[in-house]
Amino acid sequence: MSSSAARFTYLGPEGTFTEAALRTLPEAATRELVPMVSVPAALDAVRSEEAAAALVPIENSVEGGVTATLDELATGEPLMIFREVLLPIAFALLVRPGTELAGIKTVTGHPVAQPQVRNWLAANLPDAVWESAASNADGARLVQEGRFDAAFAGEFAAARYGLEPLVTGIHDAESAHTRFVLVGRPGRPPARTGADKTSAVFWLRDDHPGALLELLQEFAVRGVNLVRIESRPTGEGIGRYCFSVDCEGHIGDRRVGEALMGLKRICPQVRFLGSYPRADEVEPRLRPGTTDEEFTEAADWLSRALDGRC
Amino acid sequence: MSSSAARFTYLGPEGTFTEAALRTLPEAATRELVPMVSVPAALDAVRSEEAAAALVPIENSVEGGVTATLDELATGEPLMIFREVLLPIAFALLVRPGTELAGIKTVTGHPVAQPQVRNWLAANLPDAVWESAASNADGARLVQEGRFDAAFAGEFAAARYGLEPLVTGIHDAESAHTRFVLVGRPGRPPARTGADKTSAVFWLRDDHPGALLELLQEFAVRGVNLVRIESRPTGEGIGRYCFSVDCEGHIGDRRVGEALMGLKRICPQVRFLGSYPRADEVEPRLRPGTTDEEFTEAADWLSRALDGRC
Amino acid sequence: MSSSAARFTYLGPEGTFTEAALRTLPEAATRELVPMVSVPAALDAVRSEEAAAALVPIENSVEGGVTATLDELATGEPLMIFREVLLPIAFALLVRPGTELAGIKTVTGHPVAQPQVRNWLAANLPDAVWESAASNADGARLVQEGRFDAAFAGEFAAARYGLEPLVTGIHDAESAHTRFVLVGRPGRPPARTGADKTSAVFWLRDDHPGALLELLQEFAVRGVNLVRIESRPTGEGIGRYCFSVDCEGHIGDRRVGEALMGLKRICPQVRFLGSYPRADEVEPRLRPGTTDEEFTEAADWLSRALDGRC
Amino acid sequence: MSSSAARFTYLGPEGTFTEAALRTLPEAATRELVPMVSVPAALDAVRSEEAAAALVPIENSVEGGVTATLDELATGEPLMIFREVLLPIAFALLVRPGTELAGIKTVTGHPVAQPQVRNWLAANLPDAVWESAASNADGARLVQEGRFDAAFAGEFAAARYGLEPLVTGIHDAESAHTRFVLVGRPGRPPARTGADKTSAVFWLRDDHPGALLELLQEFAVRGVNLVRIESRPTGEGIGRYCFSVDCEGHIGDRRVGEALMGLKRICPQVRFLGSYPRADEVEPRLRPGTTDEEFTEAADWLSRALDGRC
Repeated sequence: MSSSAARFTYLGPEGTFTEAALRTLPEAATRELVPMVSVPAALDAVRSEEAAAALVPIENSVEGGVTATLDELATGEPLMIFREVLLPIAFALLVRPGTELAGIKTVTGHPVAQPQVRNWLAANLPDAVWESAASNADGARLVQEGRFDAAFAGEFAAARYGLEPLVTGIHDAESAHTRFVLVGRPGRPPARTGADKTSAVFWLRDDHPGALLELLQEFAVRGVNLVRIESRPTGEGIGRYCFSVDCEGHIGDRRVGEALMGLKRICPQVRFLGSYPRADEVEPRLRPGTTDEEFTEAADWLSRALDGRC
Repeated sequence: MSSSAARFTYLGPEGTFTEAALRTLPEAATRELVPMVSVPAALDAVRSEEAAAALVPIENSVEGGVTATLDELATGEPLMIFREVLLPIAFALLVRPGTELAGIKTVTGHPVAQPQVRNWLAANLPDAVWESAASNADGARLVQEGRFDAAFAGEFAAARYGLEPLVTGIHDAESAHTRFVLVGRPGRPPARTGADKTSAVFWLRDDHPGALLELLQEFAVRGVNLVRIESRPTGEGIGRYCFSVDCEGHIGDRRVGEALMGLKRICPQVRFLGSYPRADEVEPRLRPGTTDEEFTEAADWLSRALDGRC
Repeated sequence: MSSSAARFTYLGPEGTFTEAALRTLPEAATRELVPMVSVPAALDAVRSEEAAAALVPIENSVEGGVTATLDELATGEPLMIFREVLLPIAFALLVRPGTELAGIKTVTGHPVAQPQVRNWLAANLPDAVWESAASNADGARLVQEGRFDAAFAGEFAAARYGLEPLVTGIHDAESAHTRFVLVGRPGRPPARTGADKTSAVFWLRDDHPGALLELLQEFAVRGVNLVRIESRPTGEGIGRYCFSVDCEGHIGDRRVGEALMGLKRICPQVRFLGSYPRADEVEPRLRPGTTDEEFTEAADWLSRALDGRC
Repeated sequence: MSSSAARFTYLGPEGTFTEAALRTLPEAATRELVPMVSVPAALDAVRSEEAAAALVPIENSVEGGVTATLDELATGEPLMIFREVLLPIAFALLVRPGTELAGIKTVTGHPVAQPQVRNWLAANLPDAVWESAASNADGARLVQEGRFDAAFAGEFAAARYGLEPLVTGIHDAESAHTRFVLVGRPGRPPARTGADKTSAVFWLRDDHPGALLELLQEFAVRGVNLVRIESRPTGEGIGRYCFSVDCEGHIGDRRVGEALMGLKRICPQVRFLGSYPRADEVEPRLRPGTTDEEFTEAADWLSRALDGRC
């Protein structure tokens, strides 16, 4: 049996898009890949040191943030993101061998799949009844067992469950992607690549209507662009939020570090979730005055001014 | 059979918190109240003029926005919010008569109930297996049918399903509320009360990192405070959002109207979702310079200046 | 004798740059042009209806605002700017016939001329003693009378005082200009040309450190660019200012009108000083969402929303 | 003869308010105090090491910035402010012994005195002709010489010129003050007192309409309040300004230091003019999140995050 360091968990079961995403990572090739029943279960295995890392979905371009992941990362024992993976989303309609489109009365799949196949269903199976399954792979299993006529899942799941892909490439929105993150216990972030992303969660002061504006200005004044911002309730009452944010750059970039310190000062709570290479490798266009060199020059200038030498 | 004008739909089945919320509205007393299987179904009945209005949950202080409601209101045939209802959330653990706590191996309930009872479960039924039901009421029905040992639901649902509330008043977060909205076809908003709320959805320009900051500044410069802001993916790719916003005030308030016009100009798309009385009846504290009188005085001054009389 | 409608005053005496600027205006050709001893005197003649308008300097690219003009326009009986004139500045060194450079021991000129000829003096007449005159033309007169050896003034002033331009084209800063304004009693501003400028004075709330930031944001949120902003003390104590501002656009432009109304609401006092064609005829580059058409569309949308038709 | 270290220059001549202000400084008691003919002359004596420091007026609550001082500090060989002095302004009307009010036909004084006595003149000597003198003390000398009938100056100047104060306590604005600064060669700023002020000059990027807004936001985002901001032309053309700014706090305060570094990065040029105790000893009310302790905690937090320990 492998040690925990050799083990990666992921949101299972086998045959989901998450497994497919995990297998794109070179470091996964030498690990034991263990499917877990839920995002919390996958992450708790990391917290309890039964696994070195977990791959979980965090963002879906159709359904938005995967709230279980956002909330698990925002609360409980701290974790950190070390990698991200983008996977284009296209579903196959999996059926038992011999099933024809006309014979499909019931379909299943994960709830997040539904909006991505809604239009296709309306056009092709307008009378089919949808019932959600716990996962796309679980839907495939239920088709195998005969409880449903067809399941939406990744084409790669067909073989595992003895099914056939009757239709492939189904997706409502062009360029639909799911974004996954590789999560481990807190540690030194991966080295800067120049095309990095930083994730954090910020709690706002409760009674302050301009608090979100102030939060954004801490980024804006240092020229740090946001690439994702999502509200999440804090569980302390209607109208109380924290914000889950991804910004361009690495915590080791001076502009990002200063913005984070500014936010640390004005927010009652900040949780740093990691800096890691962008999967799309897009380098930021820096606003004049925000490079590390310019930060260093300004710090040198301040030192001289404090000494009366400028 | 009643006419559609006499009919309100709601997110069913009977016995849910939504029905309880609907019954708090005076105008519901004289209507036929029709449970629907989903938020889209409840709203589509309004769109197709089979019902005059629908009551659906829109915000939950623990789980955040009810995404189905947010997304249904943001897309498709326009609808408008005319009322809001706040309902404190507390669950009862419903069982078949005779069941004791020690005998409960399986529990069910709506997925949004789970985080609100998680701590209670961990403390009182640590070994019970949770499986989600389509609604809290549906969970009660499944207990009635014997598929689960216990269901979390509103205490009011017990009688309907021949169950008993074994434990009542279960909730993890003090002051947990669910917020419901009464949705109808677009029409003239209810009259101003001085304690109103306005809802709208704003799409951001795709390629503009400061777009959210600009959106907030349109509100801030007119002294309009936000009470809710939630990101929702537009379905057009990772990192593309619209923002669902509630602000203080009524579209008929000059400061709110000018802010909405400003947003209409800078956003590629804006959807006005209604102005309606706040359920909590809290009146806003206006910043100097933002009353209707001050707007009118400023407009008079501008007219005079255009005529060279100031 | 001409009627007051046929009379323009200007900051005299004859032979100053102000007279030269006034003569560039077509409407001056048919008026009686009357030099006055000071900016207040020139403007008071307009206030008392002895003159239809006055031409006075308002901005000098080297010395900054002509404070007498700024303060006169900001206080007292209201006046309005109807035209602006830009005049490139170059001085001539005027001497009595026969004077040579080597023989010049004393020089004079208006105090605002001094910084524009300082470098030239240091290089060419390092030992000459400077004493200020009440105006450049007055300096010329004093040379004529023998009190000084040389005066800096416009070359056009030489003949009037029986002097000779010993050196011409003297100016320290390339592209030095003086800006003059034609000021009348308040009236309907000139029609929009598409390349207009609007002037106003804004008083800040005394006790509010962010007041200037808020002032600028009223412009920024409507996409109105500033072309000049100058602080002036209000005379009510150290640290109390009003701001004299020129912005792009015409009060009849919707974006400008809305910004002015916003400022009218947040400032304890606003004085509109006019909208008039830019002398440089530069048309503004409008930010998306700030054209009159977009303002009208947004207003139409708001009307429909108030009626429940959007 | 004293060494340069023992010598302070000031804007003379003797008997001006500047001398009176200088004599309020304890360190002046042991120095040789040398009047100079102009602000540039007083400051150049410091630059050339003929004097240790110079006292010059920098701000007048009625007339605004003393532009010669602002411009001298902004350009040329760098200098630094080490102290400020506030002096209430009240003029005496000085006359030769025996002169009565009814006999005064001509009055003189420094141009900055005029607006402070304008109302008094209109009420008491409406027909008297004003002609400016090079300084208030110089005006007194001209009265002594018989060229004018009366001079406005400080009461303390009477004896020196053999004159009598006919009227005292003349000032138009209640609470009129002049602010003076003690200027030396650049050196380590005086220690923090908790009630400090920092002065600097900032040049804006030429072509950037939002540059002033950005400048102010660098202060605002760190909670640093401005107490003075004045525009000055750069001499590079109409519409090109630098801004002379005083803010609350000391360059050694973290919030001030970070704001200055931010400005150093976005401005093409910044000149630090010093941090020094406020003459009014008013301590700033700090916004939450802007104390040195909070800056230090945030920096510690960032260090831990960079090491993966938070």
